[in-house]
Amino acid sequence: MDAKILKKKCSRSTDSWNLEVSTIAKNTFNPIRALVDQMKLTPNPEKSMIALSIGDPTVFGNLKPADNVVQAIVDSVKSEKWNGYLPSIGAESARDAVAQYARRENAPLTAKDVILTSGASGALDICITALANPGDNILVPKPGFSLYKTLADSLGIQVRHYNLLPDKGWEVDTNHLISLLDERTAAIVLCNPSNPCGSVYSKKHLETVLGVCEEFKLPVIADEIYADFTFPDQTFHSMASVNQNIPILSCGGLTKRWLIPGWRMGWICINDTQNKFPELRKGLVALSQRILGPNSVTQGALECILMNTPQEFYDSTCQTVARHAKILYDIFLECPGLKPVMPQGAMYMMVGINLSSFPDYKNEVEFTENLVTEQSVFCLPASCFQYPGYFRVVLTVPENKLLEAGNRIRQFCYDHFSKERNGKSS
Amino acid sequence: MDAKILKKKCSRSTDSWNLEVSTIAKNTFNPIRALVDQMKLTPNPEKSMIALSIGDPTVFGNLKPADNVVQAIVDSVKSEKWNGYLPSIGAESARDAVAQYARRENAPLTAKDVILTSGASGALDICITALANPGDNILVPKPGFSLYKTLADSLGIQVRHYNLLPDKGWEVDTNHLISLLDERTAAIVLCNPSNPCGSVYSKKHLETVLGVCEEFKLPVIADEIYADFTFPDQTFHSMASVNQNIPILSCGGLTKRWLIPGWRMGWICINDTQNKFPELRKGLVALSQRILGPNSVTQGALECILMNTPQEFYDSTCQTVARHAKILYDIFLECPGLKPVMPQGAMYMMVGINLSSFPDYKNEVEFTENLVTEQSVFCLPASCFQYPGYFRVVLTVPENKLLEAGNRIRQFCYDHFSKERNGKSS
Repeated sequence: MDAKILKKKCSRSTDSWNLEVSTIAKNTFNPIRALVDQMKLTPNPEKSMIALSIGDPTVFGNLKPADNVVQAIVDSVKSEKWNGYLPSIGAESARDAVAQYARRENAPLTAKDVILTSGASGALDICITALANPGDNILVPKPGFSLYKTLADSLGIQVRHYNLLPDKGWEVDTNHLISLLDERTAAIVLCNPSNPCGSVYSKKHLETVLGVCEEFKLPVIADEIYADFTFPDQTFHSMASVNQNIPILSCGGLTKRWLIPGWRMGWICINDTQNKFPELRKGLVALSQRILGPNSVTQGALECILMNTPQEFYDSTCQTVARHAKILYDIFLECPGLKPVMPQGAMYMMVGINLSSFPDYKNEVEFTENLVTEQSVFCLPASCFQYPGYFRVVLTVPENKLLEAGNRIRQFCYDHFSKERNGKSS
Repeated sequence: MDAKILKKKCSRSTDSWNLEVSTIAKNTFNPIRALVDQMKLTPNPEKSMIALSIGDPTVFGNLKPADNVVQAIVDSVKSEKWNGYLPSIGAESARDAVAQYARRENAPLTAKDVILTSGASGALDICITALANPGDNILVPKPGFSLYKTLADSLGIQVRHYNLLPDKGWEVDTNHLISLLDERTAAIVLCNPSNPCGSVYSKKHLETVLGVCEEFKLPVIADEIYADFTFPDQTFHSMASVNQNIPILSCGGLTKRWLIPGWRMGWICINDTQNKFPELRKGLVALSQRILGPNSVTQGALECILMNTPQEFYDSTCQTVARHAKILYDIFLECPGLKPVMPQGAMYMMVGINLSSFPDYKNEVEFTENLVTEQSVFCLPASCFQYPGYFRVVLTVPENKLLEAGNRIRQFCYDHFSKERNGKSS
């Protein structure tokens, strides 16, 4: 074929480009980024900025990984055994370590049930992609982590938000959940302990919710990245240990409990003890081949990280966060117009704003914007989590900053609280 | 709503599951795995197995990363500066290091042009996903790396294979390429230096091919994971340095040149100096948010790895591979019925089989299967690369094993070559 001839035939040969990006790319959207980027965040120059917004426990330097975790990487890279390609689902020894770590009574995991991923985000991506087609829908919690929607939207999967109940410790409103179901509901995402709520569900509540999933044949994507990240008086129950009759894809990783979010080591534990869903397993494995699995050096360190990190390390982190939660909760209780919900785990607290008491601000975005302008404290508006009227605070901030931030928030509330509008005028 | 009532209404509440995995999951398929898993590979028990099939330079332990590369990871993890979340496109300092490393005359990259990814596979995944919609098509080389097809197929993007010409050093058959174009051709993947061919294109040939891309407004995904991995007498020309009028997404990474494929550190360099394609840039950045970028500890080491690795290290690897290529090429020239194509870079050689000279075997799969059965040498049948009638050998195998494998292959050819069928009977 002569190129000149074809050129005339082919309308591609023009002077101008007509390059459009794909629908997936157009629809991949981070609501936190989008909201925060639009906010007018101009701190008060007389006060140092304190960000209670960033869900990264490492930013202030007060929470560091355990020594054995750092040493495990040093040993792994120096061994020169972990430079080559590994299976896309991860090295057998690393998957075995996760299985040993994550297995519970009634949830007897082995290495073959584990897929290592690029962070828990990678795990969620693979699970959602494997379970739902464009036009299907998945159920996600409200308030809930925004990535579920980011991933689903980009693939043309509809997201339906089931309500969590703030007055019942953010338990799932099962009736609302059921009302959202239809023939094209492909899966439900359950998050426990919860970001952004900090809730930790009782075994009984998990039995109820998973009972509904069983009844309606709903595969479960269990976002358990905060597994065991619970305050001292609380107990984490893995979903797989509670119900063995439904496929439960538990997504976890090193990010939170080991305080190393940047390392991007996550996993999917496929809980299907009766092997009723071999196609699902096969689909998850297939999807892991797209990017060939997570960093090998970290895989080489995984056994040591999971097995040798001292219990005191875990306990210390949880105690710190629980103490911080109590400090802020007590301050917020004194703040006119705020309604904090005491968390039981994870690293967050949700705080309701009685907006009718703050007539200066029409919504929680304006409230948090002005909190920055006046007090240089940034709390994340919970619109990011589909939950307007609340803000989220991060509890891993150092205690002195946390106290200072709490006091400034109290001052802000005193400055703007309006008794008149609250019907409490004297 | 009463669950009991809804239960009756909703046909989801049945006794049996009807769980189907998504189309993407069903269509994600690794052709190498699929082919190799079906082969009857039973080595001769009297001969030790030598695999010339695995494109992983680390498996035999003869090629190790440079000391500074290992030390860079040790320093990065011990600094405790690289534990937190990083931007999904990667840390600024790490992206700047890639930009400095990858920029060439006429291709003036800066940090903002770089997206760090989970290996070059992750880079290819993001590029293909950003450029093409389901129903579109992309052009990929034949023979070519199978991942292009794996990624495209899974997203419902059609793959069209343009021919490379073995007798012209695997140059692109541009007329054939043009004949494949239509309105829905979204991009072309060009690979240089090439897996599986080991070819290194001249500047002139790249000008010709990229001229065609410019003529027909074809965005280029440049698989340059073997950039600078060329034999001593060869020069690598980056595509971006050759043509500045088309968007060229150059995919690279640490995998090959630094001999650490498991580390999964890749990148996309967005070559669009005139910023004509801001939407493409935005789409690529959006897609990077799905899994939040690659391992942070490796990002912390990236500047040192790219800047401080001694030139002798790179040279030594290329000299070794070039020597191995010459050794095997000379042996294959002596093998009746084989037609090796001498590579100029990367780590591979393609070898044609004159199948009419080997009447025992109906195709290259049977040929390579029986090579295992008799001689315990495994070469990858090039059906994996859409190129039947050839096999691919990997050149990073230690020299003694390589010589032994070559000699066994020669023996195998002598044992099975049939002069009669070759029309050379005496």
